[in-house]
Order: sequence, then C-alpha cells, then structure tokens
Amino acid sequence: MLETLKKKVFEANLNLVKHGLVIFTWGNVSAIDRDSQLVVIKPSGVSYDTMTAEDMVVVDLDGNIVEGKLKPSSDTATHLVLYKAFPAIGGVVHTHSTYATAWAQAGCDIPNIGTTHADYFKDEIPCTRQMTADEIEGKYELETGNVIVERFKDLNAEYTPGVLVNNHGPFSWGKDADSAVHNAVVLEQVAKMASISFAVNPKLTMNDDLIKKHFFRKHGPDAYYGQ
Amino acid sequence: MLETLKKKVFEANLNLVKHGLVIFTWGNVSAIDRDSQLVVIKPSGVSYDTMTAEDMVVVDLDGNIVEGKLKPSSDTATHLVLYKAFPAIGGVVHTHSTYATAWAQAGCDIPNIGTTHADYFKDEIPCTRQMTADEIEGKYELETGNVIVERFKDLNAEYTPGVLVNNHGPFSWGKDADSAVHNAVVLEQVAKMASISFAVNPKLTMNDDLIKKHFFRKHGPDAYYGQ
Amino acid sequence: MLETLKKKVFEANLNLVKHGLVIFTWGNVSAIDRDSQLVVIKPSGVSYDTMTAEDMVVVDLDGNIVEGKLKPSSDTATHLVLYKAFPAIGGVVHTHSTYATAWAQAGCDIPNIGTTHADYFKDEIPCTRQMTADEIEGKYELETGNVIVERFKDLNAEYTPGVLVNNHGPFSWGKDADSAVHNAVVLEQVAKMASISFAVNPKLTMNDDLIKKHFFRKHGPDAYYGQ
Amino acid sequence: MLETLKKKVFEANLNLVKHGLVIFTWGNVSAIDRDSQLVVIKPSGVSYDTMTAEDMVVVDLDGNIVEGKLKPSSDTATHLVLYKAFPAIGGVVHTHSTYATAWAQAGCDIPNIGTTHADYFKDEIPCTRQMTADEIEGKYELETGNVIVERFKDLNAEYTPGVLVNNHGPFSWGKDADSAVHNAVVLEQVAKMASISFAVNPKLTMNDDLIKKHFFRKHGPDAYYGQ
Repeated sequence: MLETLKKKVFEANLNLVKHGLVIFTWGNVSAIDRDSQLVVIKPSGVSYDTMTAEDMVVVDLDGNIVEGKLKPSSDTATHLVLYKAFPAIGGVVHTHSTYATAWAQAGCDIPNIGTTHADYFKDEIPCTRQMTADEIEGKYELETGNVIVERFKDLNAEYTPGVLVNNHGPFSWGKDADSAVHNAVVLEQVAKMASISFAVNPKLTMNDDLIKKHFFRKHGPDAYYGQ
Repeated sequence: MLETLKKKVFEANLNLVKHGLVIFTWGNVSAIDRDSQLVVIKPSGVSYDTMTAEDMVVVDLDGNIVEGKLKPSSDTATHLVLYKAFPAIGGVVHTHSTYATAWAQAGCDIPNIGTTHADYFKDEIPCTRQMTADEIEGKYELETGNVIVERFKDLNAEYTPGVLVNNHGPFSWGKDADSAVHNAVVLEQVAKMASISFAVNPKLTMNDDLIKKHFFRKHGPDAYYGQ
Repeated sequence: MLETLKKKVFEANLNLVKHGLVIFTWGNVSAIDRDSQLVVIKPSGVSYDTMTAEDMVVVDLDGNIVEGKLKPSSDTATHLVLYKAFPAIGGVVHTHSTYATAWAQAGCDIPNIGTTHADYFKDEIPCTRQMTADEIEGKYELETGNVIVERFKDLNAEYTPGVLVNNHGPFSWGKDADSAVHNAVVLEQVAKMASISFAVNPKLTMNDDLIKKHFFRKHGPDAYYGQ
Repeated sequence: MLETLKKKVFEANLNLVKHGLVIFTWGNVSAIDRDSQLVVIKPSGVSYDTMTAEDMVVVDLDGNIVEGKLKPSSDTATHLVLYKAFPAIGGVVHTHSTYATAWAQAGCDIPNIGTTHADYFKDEIPCTRQMTADEIEGKYELETGNVIVERFKDLNAEYTPGVLVNNHGPFSWGKDADSAVHNAVVLEQVAKMASISFAVNPKLTMNDDLIKKHFFRKHGPDAYYGQ
C-alpha cells in the first residue's frame, strides 16, 4: 500500500540527516496521499541507520494505523492537524535543527529581513504562543497542531511554509515530502543568518518592497525565476 | 578480563571523535561492571588514532590498577566518585566539547529552555561551584567528583545525566558507556542552542509544564515515546 | 562557441558548492570574453547536481541570448551592469553565503579591521543603500547593478572586488571566474571574522597603516608576496 | 640538505589544512635545525594542493636562502626573530584561523578562563600592541617579530606558546613543527570557546588556582598527565 509514497517519505527522512538538520531520531517527515486521505510517516524513535522504507507507518487522518508494524512518530497528531487545516500541502517535516530551535526557544518570530528569507517565505517565520498547562496535559501533540493553525489565522500557509513552536522547534511543509524538507533546510539557514544579522546590527531595517519583489519573483502567477 | 566491556569502552571513546566532541586526547569514557565492581577506562594521554581495545585499563573502585599496561586517565578518580555516588549509572564521559565547555567556563547552569533539553534532562544542566585552593591542591580529581556530587544534593542524577564542572568542562553519564556518550552529544547540542537562544532574546521565558511533559513523555513509568 | 569559457564558468559554479558558499541553486558565476563582448553565465534555477558545461548560457551585453537552450540566471542583468562599469573585471559571482549575507541583511559595511581583509580588499566591503520602490518595481536586476556602481563612485572596484547588496547578499568579482570565486570565499571568511571580532570588542580600533601595508604587499607595482 | 626536516615541515603545513586552520595559502610552518642554525620554511604564496617537500626553502638566521628554487614565505623574518629570541623552540606556525584572528582583530588578550586553555598555555594568550607607522613602513616582518618578543618581556614563551599579533592573527610555536601546529589548533579552539563564554557571561570569573593546577599537571617537573 502506497509503496511509492513510503519510499519517498523514507528518503526524505534520510535527507534530513544528509542536510545536517537531524541527529539521532530528532526529526520526522510525513506525506499525504490526498486521494485516499492516508498519511505515511516515520515510526517513533527508530534510528536512521537501521530504518527501511518498509518501516514507514500508514495512518488515516484520525491517527488510526492502517498499515505498519511499528508505532508512528509521537508527533503524528501534529502532522494530521496540519494536513486538515492546510489543504494544499502534501508533506510535513519536524526537526530540532540548531538555529531554528534556538529561535523557537527564544520565543521569537524570525523577521523577514532579507531576500534569502523572502525567496521562500512571504512573511516572518511565525512563533506560536506558549501552550497552556491544559493544552500540554491534554492531547498535547494535537494541541501543538492547533496552536500552529491558530497562529496562521492571518497568514497564508502556502506562502509561509514553516513555523516555530514556542520553546520547542520548527515545523515546515510543502507540496510534497521533498519540498517540506527543502523548506526545513531554508528555515534553518534563514534562522542562522538572522541571528548573525541582529548581532551585527540590532537596529537593522527591512525593505518591504524588496521582500515582496523577491517572493513574487519565485512564487505566484508572475514568477519568472527558474526555467 | 572484561573483554566485552573493554571493547565497548574503546568504541565509545572513538564515538566521541566521530561525534565531533573530542580532538587530540581531550576526552575519556569509562564503564563499570557492577557485579565485579570493576571499572574499564581509557588510558591517559593516548591518541585515538593508535589506541586499541587492549589498551583499556581495568581499575577497582579505589583506583588500583587490576589489569592494563598503561596508566588510566588522569580523571579516573572523578569517574570513580560518580560510580559510588550514583548507583544506577553504568558509564561516564568527560569531554571538552566546545559549547558545553564554554558554559562551564562562564560558570553558568544551562537553563532548561526547550524540549530538546527536556527530552533528556529534567532540570537545568547544573554547573558546580568553583573549587577551593585546598581542594585543587589536595586530591584534585577526587575533589572534582565531590563537587559534582555536592551539586546533585537536590537533583536526581538519573533524570539529569550531566553536569558542568566550573571553569573546566562537562561530565555526562548513563546506564552504559553508549548512553553516556549519547548524553554528551545532547549536552553539547543543548549548550549550543541555549547560547544562540539567549543571544536572540536575553529575556526569553521557559514553560515548566512543557518541560515536564517532554521529559516524562520519554522517561519514567508513563513514557510513550519510541517503540 | 566559447567552449573553454563555458567549461571554466561551469567549474567555477561547482566550486561555490565545494567551498560551502552555496546550497541548492543559491548562487551564480559568470565570465566575459572581452574580445567578443559575450558573457557566459549559469542558467536560472538549475540544480548543481545535474548541470553540465553545455547548460551554460551565452548572452551579449544587452542580455540577448546568443547561445543556449535554457534561460540565463535571473541575476544576469546585474552581472552585465558590472561588466560595463568595471572594464578590468573578467568574472562575477553572486552567492547567499551565510556571514556575508548576514552583514548585507544588517545593512552594514564590513570595516577593514585586519590583515586578512586587507590582503584582498583595500577598503571596507561596502554595503549599498536600500533600493527604492521604483527601482525594485522597475528593472530590478539592472537597478541592483546600478546601486552597486553608485556605491563605487569613490571606490576602486579592482582594489575592492566585492560588495554587499543591502538586505540581499554579496557580489564579488575578479580578473576571471576563478578569481571572482576566490574573492567570494575571502569575503565570506572576512565577514565571519568581523562578526566575531565586534562581538569580542565592539570598540576595537583599526590600524590604517597596517591595512595599507598588507594590501600593497600583495597588489600593485610594489607587491612582493608570492613567487 | 635537511631532507628529513623538509619532509616534516611540508607535512606540518599540510596538517594546517587538515585541521581546518588554513584555506588557500593563508598559513606557514617552519622548523629550525639548531645544530646548523638553518631554518626550513614554506615557500611564499604556493598552493597546498601542488606543493611538495622539495619546495621547502632553507634559510639561515639572517634570512639568506641557502637552498631552494622558490622565495620563502613573506613572513620568514618574523619566524627568524622568534627562533633567535626563544632558544628552546624548534617550530613556528602562522595562520589566519578564524577565531584566533578575530581576537587579534579585536586587539584583545584571550584570558585564561578554563582548563582547556590552562592545559597548554600558563597565562593569557597575549595580544601585541598596535605597530607604529615607522615599524610598518620599515622592515615590517622583522618588526612584527620584535613586537611579539616585546610582549613576552614578562611572559615565559615556553609556557605560553602562542601570541596574537594585533589586527593581524596568531603565531604559535613548540619544540618542533608538529608541536607548533598542535598549539595552533589549541589556540584556535581556546579562542572559540572564550568568545562563546564571554557572550554567555561577560562577568565570568577565573580560578587562578585551577589554572595553575592544570598547567602544571601536564608541564614541568611535577607533571603526571599521560604515560
């Protein structure tokens, strides 16, 4: 079942390691098949060294295991909330990559201060509010998804394909698993550059016209970047 | 004698290099066989390039050499204090890894400001008090162990498997040598993230409920992370 | 047509990856053949993994494609302005390398505070002014070249072979493509060192005599460095 | 002539690259044969990729070329001053390694704030005063050596085997070329750790007793570290 998608999700998980975003088991990638409404996700706590494509777990949008011998990622409920809330996305990634996680721990949005950021994210990379005790002690992973969705009330999730969960770390997404991994790499790089920029000049100023130009040079109907 | 444990300790020492925690001879791993009360430890000042499993030194809990042609690590006395004080641990690691050492030099605890930290360490990673002239000029390595144990008077060493020795560097431990190395990698990563987080936002706020949730999601009787 | 130059430009593009200045498609190298007034440049948005020397695009100084099946880099117009304004240069590089981009986002010149910088750049590495809405909404890539040239009104482009485009990132150049890549590597390294130096001592002082000495030890008629 | 020493100096130069201290031609290693009073040094501006042991240049203590087809390093005069002033040393290294150079650009001594530093350097790693216009316009490389020696008036060069030349970068030394390279690696690592420590806690306090203990645990008549 969904053998091609399982292979893609498996490889996308390995790419997290290759791009230096993940050590040990600190990350997970999923992808959705919108036709069957099934999600393929990494199993929980399994080492990247020994994992195979066959170990990927298939769940439905309620989190029931449809296929797989292993338990799915403990963050599965968060992924599912995102697939339901953002109908255009096909892949979701969670990591603890160094700089993005550091900004999440700092509880700060990453302002859109340059064209590297603007080539991929139209707005700031938002940081969610701190979760309440009730949310944490209740269905924690599901509520993590909910605070992300809440934060995107006035943001376009297709145009800003990533978020920082307060005191935790980044989630990113895209049209498929590969695109979500790509955005995770960009998010980490953008977070690193921003931390250096603000250290060099805490009073730096943005250029909103430039940000808009770069985003729409690569995205939307008037894009002209690439072949 | 203890050939299997010597091999494990040897490989754990090499893993310090592989994980980028150690250059030259700046680190050591030991493990204890609780039945025989014997400790296997890296020899002092021997290069990782030429070291073999046979070079590991076996000592008793008083520091007497039981087997081995080489002198044990100069930090042996510190390891032994930890094995005596923390009966549940099976492996100890000392490194001069960059960020953890930098925090130790700063003389600061690493506050528990995120889920990456909380997945492994229930509380702050504590920094010991500065040692006195008497302690330093006396049995220095043994006293290093004593200030660590003193710092854990109100902390659970199983739930917080690492420490910063003031002006010096990190020690970590775990149920065996591999687990102690794993915790040394996490400690370094957590130290790096924390230094970036505080640079981004010196007034960041923690979320104690979230910290507790993440720790107990992976540890203790109600853990549900992994297979 | 220009097969040798196409091969050089192709290899120079790959060297950006090798030197860690570029991930994905975030950079481009061009070179000019001054006799024919033709420029060879990387195609737009093509992955370094699959690109071949044959994919390089040949354009004239007005940006017309003279040879090539792919669209040239979206930054082509910027490169062309530089070739017209700075007649001694033979190669141009654009990257989003981490530290140079961070300084560009900070909107700051990189002051010439050490001999590493002075061995390659006689003066500060200048940062352009922010572009206006009109410039951005007009011929954006051409105007990017124009603000660079404007910034060099009182600077010698041969003696300071690089620039930071405000809120964007670095461009560098040299007598050929290889030399432009070399200067891109130096610019990134100098940007990194400067960010650390100012963090250590925000009140550091420069030594103009030393800067001048080092620059002219390697450049100009009295150079004596090298064979 | 001095074939063994030439091979050692050649390999020590390559080790600078291997340890990540040098890119391009930004470093040089020399060693002295105290019997013949001859110094073997890297040629000036030659790439590490193509250099051979035969390219090493032999000079006397006045800087005259005794053997070799290439010009010696432009920093040769600095090396020679150090060999004359510090009779116990056998090798000298100069690099532009990132963090050590950043501290040199900052014009600051690196205080001895931890045991990693104290295991190799008894005191702060000193930074020379800024050079005068006369010194720079005169015999610049020789005067660079002189300001180093001036800075060691009250310091023991054997116990503190490295220095930062103000606005320039580090020199280190040791009993032979390998030892000088080893100290260059340590200097860079110590500089990196110190920059992080002071960012974490600008008011950190040192522990002089601990510093002394660690230095003399590895150096001098009462050393007990190693085999």
